[in-house]
Order: sequence, then structure tokens, then C-alpha cells
Amino acid sequence: MVNVKELSEQVSASGRRAGGRQARLVQRSAPVAAFPGLVRKIPVYELVPEEAVELIHQESLKILEEVGIDFRDDEAAGMWRRAGADVRGHRVRIDRALLMQLVSTIPSEFTLNARNPARSVRIGGQNSVFVPMYGAPYVRDLDNQRRYGSLADLNNFHKLAYLSPALHSSSSIICEPMEIPVPRRHLHIIDSAIRHSDKPFMGIVTARERAEDTLAMAKLVFGDAFVNDNPVMVSITNCNSPLVWDATMLDALKVYARHNQPVILAPFALCGASTSASSVGAVAQVNAEALAGLAFTQLVRPGSPQIYGQFMVAVDMKSGAPMGGTTEAAQMMYLMGALARKYRLPWRTSGFHVGSKLNDAQAGYEANMLMHAAILSGAHYIWHAAGWLEAGLVCGYSKFVTDAEQCEGWYRYAGGLSFDDFKEAMAAVREVGPGGHFLGTQHTLDHFERAFFAPKLMDFSSFEQWSAEGENDMDARGRARAKALLAGYEAPALDPGVAESLDDFIARRERELPDSVR
Amino acid sequence: MVNVKELSEQVSASGRRAGGRQARLVQRSAPVAAFPGLVRKIPVYELVPEEAVELIHQESLKILEEVGIDFRDDEAAGMWRRAGADVRGHRVRIDRALLMQLVSTIPSEFTLNARNPARSVRIGGQNSVFVPMYGAPYVRDLDNQRRYGSLADLNNFHKLAYLSPALHSSSSIICEPMEIPVPRRHLHIIDSAIRHSDKPFMGIVTARERAEDTLAMAKLVFGDAFVNDNPVMVSITNCNSPLVWDATMLDALKVYARHNQPVILAPFALCGASTSASSVGAVAQVNAEALAGLAFTQLVRPGSPQIYGQFMVAVDMKSGAPMGGTTEAAQMMYLMGALARKYRLPWRTSGFHVGSKLNDAQAGYEANMLMHAAILSGAHYIWHAAGWLEAGLVCGYSKFVTDAEQCEGWYRYAGGLSFDDFKEAMAAVREVGPGGHFLGTQHTLDHFERAFFAPKLMDFSSFEQWSAEGENDMDARGRARAKALLAGYEAPALDPGVAESLDDFIARRERELPDSVR
Repeated sequence: MVNVKELSEQVSASGRRAGGRQARLVQRSAPVAAFPGLVRKIPVYELVPEEAVELIHQESLKILEEVGIDFRDDEAAGMWRRAGADVRGHRVRIDRALLMQLVSTIPSEFTLNARNPARSVRIGGQNSVFVPMYGAPYVRDLDNQRRYGSLADLNNFHKLAYLSPALHSSSSIICEPMEIPVPRRHLHIIDSAIRHSDKPFMGIVTARERAEDTLAMAKLVFGDAFVNDNPVMVSITNCNSPLVWDATMLDALKVYARHNQPVILAPFALCGASTSASSVGAVAQVNAEALAGLAFTQLVRPGSPQIYGQFMVAVDMKSGAPMGGTTEAAQMMYLMGALARKYRLPWRTSGFHVGSKLNDAQAGYEANMLMHAAILSGAHYIWHAAGWLEAGLVCGYSKFVTDAEQCEGWYRYAGGLSFDDFKEAMAAVREVGPGGHFLGTQHTLDHFERAFFAPKLMDFSSFEQWSAEGENDMDARGRARAKALLAGYEAPALDPGVAESLDDFIARRERELPDSVR
Repeated sequence: MVNVKELSEQVSASGRRAGGRQARLVQRSAPVAAFPGLVRKIPVYELVPEEAVELIHQESLKILEEVGIDFRDDEAAGMWRRAGADVRGHRVRIDRALLMQLVSTIPSEFTLNARNPARSVRIGGQNSVFVPMYGAPYVRDLDNQRRYGSLADLNNFHKLAYLSPALHSSSSIICEPMEIPVPRRHLHIIDSAIRHSDKPFMGIVTARERAEDTLAMAKLVFGDAFVNDNPVMVSITNCNSPLVWDATMLDALKVYARHNQPVILAPFALCGASTSASSVGAVAQVNAEALAGLAFTQLVRPGSPQIYGQFMVAVDMKSGAPMGGTTEAAQMMYLMGALARKYRLPWRTSGFHVGSKLNDAQAGYEANMLMHAAILSGAHYIWHAAGWLEAGLVCGYSKFVTDAEQCEGWYRYAGGLSFDDFKEAMAAVREVGPGGHFLGTQHTLDHFERAFFAPKLMDFSSFEQWSAEGENDMDARGRARAKALLAGYEAPALDPGVAESLDDFIARRERELPDSVR
């Protein structure tokens, strides 16, 4: 459908460029910089020994065998019955042999295709990606106001995803375009993701027909045959903890899995409320829920790629409110990573999700508590890696660009330390000797630019200079950067025939679909 | 000198308590809560394989053999000559056998004694401590103004260190009391640390006689004989990278090591300026510098406890300014940890040091980038764990209490995950079953309070509640908490005889010492 050479020619031909003050802040060159998928070159961190991971695994199996799990969908229950599970109503008890046999057919790695093939990425094994947040009804806008999200905001976030080199996906519902009626909203969400970025995106799961529309739109971009077999989007189905897969999620799951489109099977756990008040207990339960969902995908289409996952935040046991980047959230992430490796599955976690209302110190402490764990636990699909505020209720412009830049640092981090120039570096020590300095050595001149990551949104200037520039905190600098990036944005090329067919599809479906929730 | 029972009786007898609004924020009970030294129960993270650590080690040895290192002090150079090193002027070349033999006599662990024995801590092995920052000329005060530090500020920070349960030390020069003439300043710094807290503190290193005064004051508290053999303070000597140990640092080092008082041998490396523009090269150089300093301590007093260490920040290669919590700073920390383990040495790193001017998002991202690495790299003396802003130029009140609370979370984190109630937790899953919730189960009621860390300075309340309370960011909440803590502060008991002898000592030394720099 699209090819890289054509694309970059079209981008070059468009001729619009950011100038003056904005150019200084943005400093990008055409075509837009984008890092390839991250290939992890550092070891994983194992928080607990293998026996502890095995113990958790065993407890998860027992839950599925003894308590069972609800699949609240007649078709799904029937599929389980035919597969040999013990099914009573919607309660499904799955013995460990059946469960693990099904899970074993899920590939350890797969390619997620983008409409620009240069932006396609591998998921699984040593390959990881950073993906922006999803699902915020509110935004914290360019003037630091909290308000409902709009289609214009969503367009903006897709533009920022496109412009952020370390983000490997455009997500989809970064914020909800609240002015569009719910039955038609999905059309404009997917359309925005496709038009404003050329990176992989995410599917819609709120109803069977919306999932089908998403696939139909993907087919206009990638071609029918391609979408029937090749992953072009990732979708999320959350288990309702404890131990319920509901019909809406299962409907979307079936649509996507039948097309070989990967789904994240991620219990959304508020630990202490929808799980027990125990980190290890919560992990064992969430693992059982995820395994049951994963196994079900293989009843739908054996061998289809899927993503193991978790979203686990602890509940503040005094107020009942979900927290974000706290101690146990990071610890549980390491356990989920160990379990994913045990099952040889690609897995998803969340990178920069926080409870903070603002892009303030709380957000920063929470964010890097979690991202450090996401990186060291070997997560493959590092979601909510840009924008997330207020337990997911809000996507912040400043938070988005702050996170996106921090992802650049984490990308380097996971790429490992370079020993390539070690000999030269030691030669420089000999050359400089006691009491000298290294600023003028050939080694420094050669390695000046790439030796150390220098995030531009972090201010390391003198107090005097920072004062003269208005004493802006990182939140204010982030908003300025988001504005500058958006002002300099140019859309990636899209085949005019594809664009027209998307327009036609949306127009037709808008005629067919109601303009309010039925 | 002091004992716990007496202390708590005295504290109880003092009868002053925080009330009303402040009590709600502070919620502490007498005696003041203090966590014992952290016993790490999680594995360390090894960023690179053992061969890579060995390679760095070998390059460090070569530097000391071939290039050598300056000990710019005649006595020190003479001691090296007598030990068998190749000494020309102040340039000392140390062969690997001599170097490693000397380093091998440093104990792997030691006890750092506090004037309140209940606050004494172990350093090394599985034992780690959190220590507040050191050395700021400026403070960011309770009204968020940046100004010179004063003795009143220093007193306040020592009070906050005392009141923070996860801080294991009072440091010493948290901020400089700028109004006190430099030749007399050390007396009031140490006096403040001793009077306002009962935790271990840090020595003064800016001149030989100031180190001697520090020891003299310690002797008034602990007794002469005790201080001649038992660690009661930790002091810092920075190598001037590259490869220079200067006379001032060596003077202090000799005073302390002769008394068996541990010194941190920590090159202060601005990577890219005082080291090569290579993370691995910087580590090899800093390691050589630290090893040479450590070996020298064993010429002064064989078997004396010492602390291996590093302070490494990358320089922004565009502006030349030091950065804080960036990618490579964390990566280098893991290498230093691996080297420390190779040498079986207690080691120091920095936890929450940042370049940010404010307690804002930048500070948070920087801080937890580093603390996560400090914890997982197995650091024993986790310094700059409270207060640090602006590359160490500023100690912030809000940052101090924010960091101190975050240390509580990291203390839990390093304590590992509990499997103790795993069976009960799984029984709760059986009890609740699919579609239920856990809030009323006996397990939840039993584990409600301690299951998940809920930092009070992080706001997880609803947007509406947070709005109604003034939309305060974490920086503002931190300042409010610092004010409340200080308002509720009560001094730990100090033997009146000791207090009087300290007064007398200071009065005498003030008569003897000039009131301006000579």
C-alpha cells in the first residue's frame, strides 16, 4: 500500500518546515526521526527465585482448576465445553494440561505491521516497544486546564506520537473525542491514528461491530488478505477481576483473534479491592485470569499471536483510590515478567502510569519507579509510556512530551553500555594524566555527541540562566515543547486512494450508525 | 553515654506534643519512629557480565601501574614509598599486588555507632542505610525562595532527619550555615547534628584541625576510648579527577583513618570533563582513583573500615553543565556496585541527586531513575537520599521530606516481597470467587494496613477533592509537611553533662579560632 521511498519523497516535496523560534525547540530534520523497535541488550532482573515463580504458577493453576473462571458469553462457554473444560453455566474450570497446551501454541514473537513498513516492529523475545497511553476522557491541555478530550486533542496526540522518535505506536484512544457520539466515535479514532501517524496503532474493543469496523478500516490501508493473517494492530481486553471475562471483551477478542490480530489479555487489577491485599496473591490471581484468556484465544484461532499482560495498581487502603507508581506496583511487575518468560510469551506492562493530577514531582517519582521496573523486567509492550495522569482519567500534553523524551533515555538504557571505544577511552586517560581535563582530547571530540543522554526538557543550566528564562518548571517547559512540536508538524504521506476510501467508509458507517448510544 | 530506656523516659517526660491541624499531618507517636538499618532481601542486578567487570578492573590496575596517581602531600608520598610503590615527587605508581593486598584488609562490614545505640547501623553486606544530602550553600526554603543557608536551616534539616523514619543518619553539612565564619563553622555544624538528632552523623573534612575538632566533639559524646577504635561518623574525601588526591583531603583522611573512623573514597566525577566521554572509561578511571585512596587508608591504619564509592554525573556536552539522574548515571552505578562486590567492600552511591532547580517533575524523574539503580545495585551507603536539588547547590525543604518519604517505600522494596500470607491470600480468592470483591474478607481486614505502601505526600484522592483542597502540587504539599513536622519537633534527650561539655568546647575553640578565613 505504501512504501518508504515514496513516503520520504512525498514528505520532502511537501516543503512545509518549522521556522524561527519553533525550529530551535524542535530541531528535527525530514523525514521525521523514529527509532527502530528496541532490541534489549541488558539482562532482566529476577526479583524472586525460580521456585517462587513456580509456586505462584501452581497457585494460578489451582484457582482455574478448583474455583474456575467465568466466561460470560454462551459461544465462549460452548467453545470451552467442546475443548474439554468443565463448564457449568458460564463458570469454566480448566485443567492444567488443557490450559498449558493451549497457551503453548501462542508465538513467542511476532511482527506488528505499520502502514509505513519502516515503522513495523517486533514484539517479544529481546524486542520491546514504547506505546502511548489509552482511554483518557479528560486532557490537561496546552494551557494546563483540565477539560474533556476532543477530536482536535486526539489528532494532536497522534501527531505527537508520530513526532516522538522513541514511541513505536500511535495507540488509538489516547483521549476520548467526547463530542462525537459513542456509536460513531471509533471511526474517527482509528481514522485519526491512521492519518496523523504512520506507526502501528491499536484496535477498538467496546463492541463487536466496532472491532469489525476497525478491521475494515485497516483493510483499506493494508489490503484484505494482509489483514486476515498479519498483525496490524494490538487491542486490549481487560479481565474483570476477580475471575470474569465479560461478553463485550470476549466479542472483541473473537473478532481480532479470528483475524490473527493480537490481543492483550490483561486483568485490570486494583490490588486490595479486586484482588487480595497481598502482592503475591494478586499476581497469582491475575496470572490465572490472563492464562485463561490467552488459552481461549487459541480456541478461537490456534497459533494466533497474543500478549500476556497485567495492569496492577495497589489501592490506597484508607481511601480506596487507585495509586500509581508505588513500591508494590514495581515489585509485581517483576513477577509478571518472570511468569511471562516461564510461558515464553510476549508481555505487556505499563511504563509511566501515575496517580498524580499534574506533571509534577509526584508524577516523576511515580513514573520512573515503574519504567525502571518495566525495562529491567523485560516487558515487550510498554504501554502508557506517554501522557498518563490521574490514574488514566487524564492525558496531559506536557506529560506526553516529557514521557516521550524520557523514553529516549530508556531506549538507550535498554540498549546496554557500549564497550566499543573502551580502549580509546583508556588511551585518553593516559594522554590527559593526573590533574588534566578531557574536553580537548580526540576521544572526547569523537564521542562528544553521543556519549551521554542529555534530555532537552530537563534543565541543567545555571540558576541565573534558568531565572532569566522565566524560572519555568518541567511542566511549563513540556507545554512549550508540545506547542512547538505541533506547530511544526507535517502529516506523513497517505495514498490519496486510501484516504478517499477511508472517507467513504466513514461516511457510509455514519449513515448506518445511530448518533447516540442505543 | 546514653541509653535507650533513659532516652524514651526523657522523651515521654518532656510532654510537648503536636496538636490540632499539625497532628493530623504528622501523626507520629512518641518515641519518634525510626526504621532499623535496612537489611536487603532482594538480589542485586548485574548490568554486565563478570568478564566485563574484570575487564574494567584490569584497566583500572593498568592506569595505577602505568600512569600512576598523584598524592599531593609529602607525608602520603613518603608512606607510599616506604610501602614499596614507585614514587616520583607526588606521582605514585602502585603495582597490582601491593594495591590489592592493601585493599583486602578493609572490612566488608562494620557498625556505625549512633549516640542513641538503637540508631546504630551496620554498613556493608546486606546492610544499607539512607543518608541525607551534604554540602549545599543554598536552600529552597519553606516559602519556596532560594537563598543562602543559615544555622537555623541546618538545625531544621537535622530535625527533619531525626523525624524521618527511613533516614538512618543526620549527615552533617546538609546546608552551609553561611552566616558563621568558615574557620568556626564546623563546630556549629557538628553541634547541630548531635543536638537535634540521635542518629549517626558525618565528619568535617575541609581542614586537618576541623577533622580533629570533630573527633574531639565526638569524644565528648561517646568517650575518648570508644572514638579511638569504633566508627561513630562517616566522612567524605573526594578525589580530584583525574587522578589527584590533594593535601586537604589526605589530611582529613589521615586524621579519621588513624581513629578507625571510616572515610568514603569517592571520586567526584563530571563524566566527559574530568573523565573521558565514555561511561565504561569513566568507571575504570574512577575505580582506579577509589582503589588508590582505599589502599592508602590501609597504610594509615591497617584494617580500618572504609567505604568504596563514586559520585558520577554526566556533563551535558553542549553546555558543560553537570546533569543528574540520567541514563548513564544509573548504568555507571550498576558497574560500581559490581566492582564493590568484587572487592568485598562497603560502597556508597547517591540516591536522589538531581539537576532540577525545583521539586518538580524533572526532580522526580531524575530521583527515581537513580534510587531504583541504587537499590538494585546493592549500595550500602545511599547518600544524598534527601533534599538534593540543583546539582547539590541547593537543599530544598520540600524535596527533603518528599525524598524522606520515598525512602520509606524503597526501604520496603529492598526488604523484598512477602510470601508469608500467600496461602491465606489464595484462600481469600476461593472465598470471594468470580465477580466478587475483597474489601470485606478476613484476609483483607488482617492485612489492610501493611499490604501496600501508601505515601502520604502523593495525592491519590479524587480530582474534586484535590481541587477543593487547593490543587496543591507535590512541591506545595512537601512544604506544608515540612512546616508541620518542624512545628511538632521535640529534641531527643542529651545528657546535660555532655551538652555542657560541648558548649564549653565550642566556646574555647571560638576563642582560639579566627573569625574569618586566614
